[in-house]
Amino acid sequence: MTMSEQLKQFLAVFDTLVADVMDVAVNQYETPKESQQWMSENLKYNVPGGKMNRGLSVVSTYEILLGRPLTKDELFKAQVLGWSVEWLQAFFLVADDMMDQSQTRRGQPCWYKKPEVSNIAINDSFVIEGSIYILLKKYFRSEPYYVDLLDLLHEVTFQTELGQMLDLITAPEDHVDLTRFTLSKYKTIVKYKTAVYSFYLPVAMAMHMAGVKNPAAFAAAHSILMEMGEFFQIQDDYLDCYGDPAVIGKIGTDIQDNKCSWLVIQALDLANADQRKILEQHYARKDEASVAAVKALYKELELQRVFTEYEEKSFAKLTQLINELDTATIPREVFTEFAKKIYKRQK
Amino acid sequence: MTMSEQLKQFLAVFDTLVADVMDVAVNQYETPKESQQWMSENLKYNVPGGKMNRGLSVVSTYEILLGRPLTKDELFKAQVLGWSVEWLQAFFLVADDMMDQSQTRRGQPCWYKKPEVSNIAINDSFVIEGSIYILLKKYFRSEPYYVDLLDLLHEVTFQTELGQMLDLITAPEDHVDLTRFTLSKYKTIVKYKTAVYSFYLPVAMAMHMAGVKNPAAFAAAHSILMEMGEFFQIQDDYLDCYGDPAVIGKIGTDIQDNKCSWLVIQALDLANADQRKILEQHYARKDEASVAAVKALYKELELQRVFTEYEEKSFAKLTQLINELDTATIPREVFTEFAKKIYKRQK
Repeated sequence: MTMSEQLKQFLAVFDTLVADVMDVAVNQYETPKESQQWMSENLKYNVPGGKMNRGLSVVSTYEILLGRPLTKDELFKAQVLGWSVEWLQAFFLVADDMMDQSQTRRGQPCWYKKPEVSNIAINDSFVIEGSIYILLKKYFRSEPYYVDLLDLLHEVTFQTELGQMLDLITAPEDHVDLTRFTLSKYKTIVKYKTAVYSFYLPVAMAMHMAGVKNPAAFAAAHSILMEMGEFFQIQDDYLDCYGDPAVIGKIGTDIQDNKCSWLVIQALDLANADQRKILEQHYARKDEASVAAVKALYKELELQRVFTEYEEKSFAKLTQLINELDTATIPREVFTEFAKKIYKRQK
Repeated sequence: MTMSEQLKQFLAVFDTLVADVMDVAVNQYETPKESQQWMSENLKYNVPGGKMNRGLSVVSTYEILLGRPLTKDELFKAQVLGWSVEWLQAFFLVADDMMDQSQTRRGQPCWYKKPEVSNIAINDSFVIEGSIYILLKKYFRSEPYYVDLLDLLHEVTFQTELGQMLDLITAPEDHVDLTRFTLSKYKTIVKYKTAVYSFYLPVAMAMHMAGVKNPAAFAAAHSILMEMGEFFQIQDDYLDCYGDPAVIGKIGTDIQDNKCSWLVIQALDLANADQRKILEQHYARKDEASVAAVKALYKELELQRVFTEYEEKSFAKLTQLINELDTATIPREVFTEFAKKIYKRQK
């Protein structure tokens, strides 16, 4: 199946899942008309959108693990778990946008920016999270791995919250302090805030579905996927500055926005005293001249070369981890397929 | 054991549970120093406080269900579940305070009002919720009812979120519209936003611990506890206006705050056209003359008598439900003990 057919099929399931959640809200929990409308709008506005790579990777990983095409029922169940990852992300993003005071998300105003929503978006994010467990109960309650799915989701949710906490404490919006940016903190934030739910969660879900029980297999998958997730975010930071806006679909503003980006951390690490002053003077300022000064410094410090070297090292480390894998428990292809999509991507 | 000894023992467990959550955050999830401090402050500031009736009722219900004093281990586990109810409530309250723009909670500034916290409180509320599942996994993973506890918590959380959604849509802070206040909507909000997690959850948890499996027993408990929960909230609304501030520990402001209180709903129901105008003119205004006008109307409409009649009717209904109980599955005492604490309370 081509990628776009997979995506089409995946998207087709969404309305069924919204209907499932609404059915419980209405027929079990007496949700009246006005709430029904609000809730279905909340789910439809916030859950779909984006590239859906996280959700789709549950399906593709499950297929690789079984080593054969999925039956209709298997496909549907993998799609439900795929959607639960997208649902979980929506829960985080609705809240993150409020905490970051963002204006737009996926080309539309952030949910909380709608005047009638405002702070109600906090509870709406809860409702998005809460719906996940309605869906899991409906479709997985009788599976032997149901409780493992719940534990997994709880652990991943908690880790993401811890990552977000560290991020919020490290880079308060209103306060520029470059001494707070360290590579070790950066890596911890990336791992917990993004990599665990984006990379480990979809694969671990597929492993549970496929009946994998061996903790060593989960640990190996975790190591590989954390390396990939870290690389993915660093690449994201790199593309924010060096990607082609026509290809990545946005103009990067990490420099202006005081983002704890991998690039500024490298710059701080490589800068001499004079160069550091340039960063202190110009980072996190909105004017074009300041942005240009920071970019000129990045060029002087050859950050594009530094990135390419990092990319090669990360790819080598990943290849080694994949080669060391005990293929009796999990095939290499799970990770090589992932890696192909990520390394050397342009967007 | 006296009530205050029970409370003392219950409170003594809290530090252990915070340490358990911190242990996972630090030793499994690499949480650095600054996050550790933030998180432990978040938990200690927001979780304890209040009367802890919800948490304590897990312990007392479990003891009644077993029909004998609890062993040390049984007591501890019931306390952990009791705390998980308090933890769940803290998750809701931290967020509710932001959505209601409240100033104080339990005699201290609301968490989000602390200048260094502000919107980070959204993620902090998530962390409080997420911690519950860390504790349950640590202490209950090997119990046969572990998955039932998780399902129960998910269902109760979702119902509470639905109740909060309806409440937020019905009474937007900035907009007075008495036509939105109806008795049926009021009852739905009370049931889902408050009664399910405050009354049903602690008892259902104790039932799972005690090995109750019969769905009819859970359904019977649910009916009784929903009746009690509804009464409890109506009584709360009544005491906001008619309670002795020295006894209830605060001066009620439901009239000023545009609250969808049971009293205003009764007033709207009983008022003639002229009396309704008084409400429209004076409800939800801060000035003392308006508050006095509303209170005078309540007196004219004899709302104290209306409440007493409701109280008697509710108590009779409850007594009937308790008498109809199949005592082979659950002893009446579970509910009579509860009822004693609630009916005719002064605070």
